[in-house]
Amino acid sequence: MQRKTLLPSECPIARGLEQVGEWWSILLMRDALQGLKRFDEFARSLDIAPSMLTRRLNSLVDAGMLQKVPYSQRPLRYEYIPTDKGKDFLVVLMAFVSWGNKHLAPEGESVQMVDRDSGQRLQLSFTKTPELQSLPLDRCTVRPGPAASAAMRDRLHNI
Amino acid sequence: MQRKTLLPSECPIARGLEQVGEWWSILLMRDALQGLKRFDEFARSLDIAPSMLTRRLNSLVDAGMLQKVPYSQRPLRYEYIPTDKGKDFLVVLMAFVSWGNKHLAPEGESVQMVDRDSGQRLQLSFTKTPELQSLPLDRCTVRPGPAASAAMRDRLHNI
Repeated sequence: MQRKTLLPSECPIARGLEQVGEWWSILLMRDALQGLKRFDEFARSLDIAPSMLTRRLNSLVDAGMLQKVPYSQRPLRYEYIPTDKGKDFLVVLMAFVSWGNKHLAPEGESVQMVDRDSGQRLQLSFTKTPELQSLPLDRCTVRPGPAASAAMRDRLHNI
Repeated sequence: MQRKTLLPSECPIARGLEQVGEWWSILLMRDALQGLKRFDEFARSLDIAPSMLTRRLNSLVDAGMLQKVPYSQRPLRYEYIPTDKGKDFLVVLMAFVSWGNKHLAPEGESVQMVDRDSGQRLQLSFTKTPELQSLPLDRCTVRPGPAASAAMRDRLHNI
């Protein structure tokens, strides 16, 4: 990705976008964090050409966001598993969920952020004392909202 | 942007990316939320070709994220001001800051999230009871961190 900014190597937003700035990459991270692992699963979810998918997956591996782990030796096949850096990207995805639910879901929410343990609704908040109120990232998940289609319910069933 | 997903109109992340999925658009929203308003200011910040900048600004106006407001009649000139929907996009930008600071800033933070009133550091947290701890979005701003260059300090000086 060509970089053209006054602050080329400093702004954390610009740096982040260099790594995941293509919408395919962001949707791939969404899928990986929802538990998809295999090439065919990503291809089916995103309806993306194999050559393009290979490029995007490799670029996320190069960026240290996905790890390539063999699951079959003959033929050699890999799964793509989020690294810690990739797992932490959940905060960006959840920010999109939060903003999208507020401004892009006039028919109601299809996806809601909830506590994996209690099922309680979660919000993304700016806080001064996170230790008091904040939930660890791995407790944060999504469930179908009232406007979810059957396909969405099915998709989110096994996260 | 071509849309190819199993859940074309439902996933709030995919919907969000349809509106701002190009990294130029995300950096333009960053600049607009940092107070840049005029064509020349955006062009200088992003070193972007005028025709491209016009297209990106218009697409953010079409998406309802920026509002075009005339500031001069002869010649007719416009400023680009974030709408409420655009202002709320701050949560996505701050999620990039949060993730970028953690994983993409080995030399230290150049940008930190702080409370506009008290200057206290802020975190982006998942909370169940936001009203207790969460700060309104317009209280959240950024200041230069310990690794900020002179250019970054200058840029963030007047936010």
